[in-house]
Amino acid sequence: MHLHTLTIVGVGLIGGSIGLAAKRRGVAQRVVAVGHQPASLQRARALQAFDDSTLDLRAGVRDADLVVLCTPVDQIAGQVLQTAAACAAGTVLTDAGSAKAQIVRDVEARTTGRVLFVGSHPLAGSEKRGVEHADADLFEGRVTVVTPTPRTDPAAVERVCGFWQALGARVRIMSPEEHDRAVALTSHVPHLVAAALAGTLPDELRELAATGFRDTTRVAAGDPALWTAIFAQNSAAVRAALGTVLDRLGEFRTALDANDWTTLAQLLTQAKKVRDALGAGPLPDHD
Amino acid sequence: MHLHTLTIVGVGLIGGSIGLAAKRRGVAQRVVAVGHQPASLQRARALQAFDDSTLDLRAGVRDADLVVLCTPVDQIAGQVLQTAAACAAGTVLTDAGSAKAQIVRDVEARTTGRVLFVGSHPLAGSEKRGVEHADADLFEGRVTVVTPTPRTDPAAVERVCGFWQALGARVRIMSPEEHDRAVALTSHVPHLVAAALAGTLPDELRELAATGFRDTTRVAAGDPALWTAIFAQNSAAVRAALGTVLDRLGEFRTALDANDWTTLAQLLTQAKKVRDALGAGPLPDHD
Repeated sequence: MHLHTLTIVGVGLIGGSIGLAAKRRGVAQRVVAVGHQPASLQRARALQAFDDSTLDLRAGVRDADLVVLCTPVDQIAGQVLQTAAACAAGTVLTDAGSAKAQIVRDVEARTTGRVLFVGSHPLAGSEKRGVEHADADLFEGRVTVVTPTPRTDPAAVERVCGFWQALGARVRIMSPEEHDRAVALTSHVPHLVAAALAGTLPDELRELAATGFRDTTRVAAGDPALWTAIFAQNSAAVRAALGTVLDRLGEFRTALDANDWTTLAQLLTQAKKVRDALGAGPLPDHD
Repeated sequence: MHLHTLTIVGVGLIGGSIGLAAKRRGVAQRVVAVGHQPASLQRARALQAFDDSTLDLRAGVRDADLVVLCTPVDQIAGQVLQTAAACAAGTVLTDAGSAKAQIVRDVEARTTGRVLFVGSHPLAGSEKRGVEHADADLFEGRVTVVTPTPRTDPAAVERVCGFWQALGARVRIMSPEEHDRAVALTSHVPHLVAAALAGTLPDELRELAATGFRDTTRVAAGDPALWTAIFAQNSAAVRAALGTVLDRLGEFRTALDANDWTTLAQLLTQAKKVRDALGAGPLPDHD
């Protein structure tokens, strides 16, 4: 994998980390950042992750072999279409959004023939925001889901998979809908549940919130606007997954109501088995 | 705070950590361990946290100024009564159990006059078990809740508070019932919720469970038998707190069902505010 020009649109934690990783690993000869605000572009320049930066999307994508959109999920489809209109024939486009089906649907609905956009979701991130938290190793050993459809250009899929692998990620191919159902269970509903726990903690009990509570609710510190956009994009799958988790909580409640400690112990044992199988995992901080 | 003989009953993570901390800080001239199984006593001896160890409760508590029961919550009340019958007049007793009201009730129901037992709950621990994970700094800077009642001997309260402070803890006094309602929200229901999330993760999605999921469900790796006993001891408060969290999850669900992104964003913003106020907190691993 060697690109001539890689353009990253959106210079937050993910965009900055992609820039750093691409420079460090020699993935592209030239890395260009497209920002929305002068201040964040300024911070991105300080990172030395980019050879060039601009506030002008059209100028930034003109010479790109690959464009990665690292903007909030509700802006991605529109920017894909803008980018496609401004870049050279053959430029491949991908993104880093946490929900995929609606973006892919919106892009394909307005594209004729083969589509050079393929959705990506690197399962790496943080409740922290901003390019100043960027990390060249953010994708190392982590899964990135790539979500082609029957209409996606096969060469685009190959380039995007190769790109993430070059950044150290393990690539897994799923359909956009399969991806969205999966992350509803692994990420979006856990976020809701963490927010429900954090949100119901009375002020006077803060002092009693030990490490267990802090870990369980850590993701609730994520940006509400970004997460609202994710929930809006993936609401059907999130509602289904929330139903699954609420059903399980109902089983716990029934066991508690009945003083049925055998069933409660079985539920806890099954959960421990799943959690143990995940292992300790990578260091905290990234999601 | 200087004790002649400190006896610790139960040599797991908490008992071992108390022994190490007491030796390190010179809190007692002699630290005695009472174990239930030769194997765990053997491991405790390797830790050099104890001057003496025995499988015989009566022999182990005979000369103690202070006895700390670090056994599963459903065994504590019985052992307090056994200990009280075997130790010298004036020996003070406390414990380290995660639920308090039922233990205190059971002890006081079978005790006449002033009670020399006062409940404690150090908010430190881990999903790990066993004396081999003991840590002399486990209590440093952490809160320990001490739960006297009108019948508790004031000198016992003073000795127990001084003891935890000598181990580095910050002491907070609450009634047993107030404690149990508080930890239902800060610890017991978060544990149930983590178990519900872990338990509903399909095997084939394990690879997609990133750090967010791992953190949110970490406590679900705790010991099912210990936790079942905690839920059984604190079932009324846990059911009330679970109701509070389910109500909040219902608000999230209603907002999702109605595509009401304004309300969803408000719920997430309120949760973030609470979580941000907790800060990053102490290092992971302890609870």
